[in-house]
Amino acid sequence: MGDKLYGGIEAGGTKFVCAAGSGPDDIRHTLNIPTTAPEETFAACRAFFDRVIDEEGPMAGLGIAAFGPVNVDAASAQYGIVGRTPKPGWPGASYLQAFSGYGVPVKVSSDVSGAALGEYLAQVRVGAGQGARSLAYVTVGTGIGAGLVAEGKVLQGTSHYEFGHIYPPRHADDPFAGRCPYHGACLEGLASGPAIMDRWGKSLSELPDDHVAHEIEAFYLAHLAVVITLTHMPEKIIYGGGVMKTPGLIDRVRRKTVELLNAYADGPSAGDMDVYIVPPGLPDVSGIAGALALARQAVENAG
Amino acid sequence: MGDKLYGGIEAGGTKFVCAAGSGPDDIRHTLNIPTTAPEETFAACRAFFDRVIDEEGPMAGLGIAAFGPVNVDAASAQYGIVGRTPKPGWPGASYLQAFSGYGVPVKVSSDVSGAALGEYLAQVRVGAGQGARSLAYVTVGTGIGAGLVAEGKVLQGTSHYEFGHIYPPRHADDPFAGRCPYHGACLEGLASGPAIMDRWGKSLSELPDDHVAHEIEAFYLAHLAVVITLTHMPEKIIYGGGVMKTPGLIDRVRRKTVELLNAYADGPSAGDMDVYIVPPGLPDVSGIAGALALARQAVENAG
Repeated sequence: MGDKLYGGIEAGGTKFVCAAGSGPDDIRHTLNIPTTAPEETFAACRAFFDRVIDEEGPMAGLGIAAFGPVNVDAASAQYGIVGRTPKPGWPGASYLQAFSGYGVPVKVSSDVSGAALGEYLAQVRVGAGQGARSLAYVTVGTGIGAGLVAEGKVLQGTSHYEFGHIYPPRHADDPFAGRCPYHGACLEGLASGPAIMDRWGKSLSELPDDHVAHEIEAFYLAHLAVVITLTHMPEKIIYGGGVMKTPGLIDRVRRKTVELLNAYADGPSAGDMDVYIVPPGLPDVSGIAGALALARQAVENAG
Repeated sequence: MGDKLYGGIEAGGTKFVCAAGSGPDDIRHTLNIPTTAPEETFAACRAFFDRVIDEEGPMAGLGIAAFGPVNVDAASAQYGIVGRTPKPGWPGASYLQAFSGYGVPVKVSSDVSGAALGEYLAQVRVGAGQGARSLAYVTVGTGIGAGLVAEGKVLQGTSHYEFGHIYPPRHADDPFAGRCPYHGACLEGLASGPAIMDRWGKSLSELPDDHVAHEIEAFYLAHLAVVITLTHMPEKIIYGGGVMKTPGLIDRVRRKTVELLNAYADGPSAGDMDVYIVPPGLPDVSGIAGALALARQAVENAG
């Protein structure tokens, strides 16, 4: 397995990261591609993989960790097809069709699921989830989402999960109505980076440390931790994404989570919160590492 | 496999249902036992199984679908031990120890997980989840809980799930503070049978059809459907339990769920809500059928 060449794509709304290597811990080639129209973006990805194949020989499989919504049900006729995103041109775009020319197994998952898988597999080496049999990866940035991995497998149902669109209770001091075009005051509508900008005119890092914005943000993100805990009981939760770079935010989230859970569930969430809620171990490469791991799983499942 | 004898216990806070048979669709003996002190209750269960074994020959395995919290992690030293329940005498009680004398594999799961498994396995024959690869079973009664089954397996993490203790947004017309001793206004604190009694002095069925209580209850239970959908994406959700016997309630829950989800997630939750949110197919026996199925899984896993 170690000698095979795998391809991975972390397909984001702003950029696509392409990579190739023998696995998530051996990434030998990478390229960032701006996300434009699907055909143009896919063509740039193929040019990258074609060049890598010229240098290294054939590619065994391809893994794609894609922005949502995207169909991730391999049993569906819509597998690998982008759903109703507001991103122009992308609804209906097909990852499987775009890369069918390589004749190799392709596995499509969501971006946060890929990041969760990358963190999971890296944990033994360097990651934040050392020894965990299961973990959740949360991103708080332009959007809010969470992916889960248990025993090395991405968890999903008929679709990838959509934790960001759950409605939390409202913080009593929150003046903002929420900005999700579908749900208004869901988690993403209230606590994403754009929601913070809309509400305060500044990012969280630009607001003074004693500004109520910090407590409001921590309140919503702690409710997300409560939901993840009570609906999946993972061994740990990794909080990543741009908003989580705000100094002190993760500690506020930990404190509020302790208060809200009130030690109700046995297990890791009732233990040391500094071990349960953690920053990413691979802050920049968890997504693409996960995509390569998906490629390896695609080959294993096909073999 | 069909000729083996399995034992099952649906271990509730009010009564224990014991059963034995060759599987969930062949229950040949049952006994209801009032839930008293653990040792007394366990002894009555053993007397039942002893009598069945005398008649039918040896028992191959035992499945227990137990009221929570109970440790369901077979890798834990605390497996099968009851957690911090307010029920006097029960914290620390061990199901594994109580039934170790039979020398057979024992599998312990939560009550709602057992019901979910019973419904899942029955769906092909008579149940509500026909053909579903995954489903959630919700109970709304003295407490609120949900269990999930996918591909014939109960889903769990480090512990069984605790959907009932998630905090929903507050309904604007709800005058009630919530009654959960741990969380106040969590789903169980706001929408369980006792919460309805505390709030209105009557059960939902006793209140007129145009009383706001119905909409408030449906609001909270629809938020639970949203959480289940977005965190697990099952093929369907079964709503059972005493409160769900209120005429018209399931239709109100369906309507509010449609409104809250706003067709965001692709798949079953965006389709026919009468197929997605359904009453139990086995209203009275899903739990004990699931317990027998757990017994069979215990034997298969051990074999």
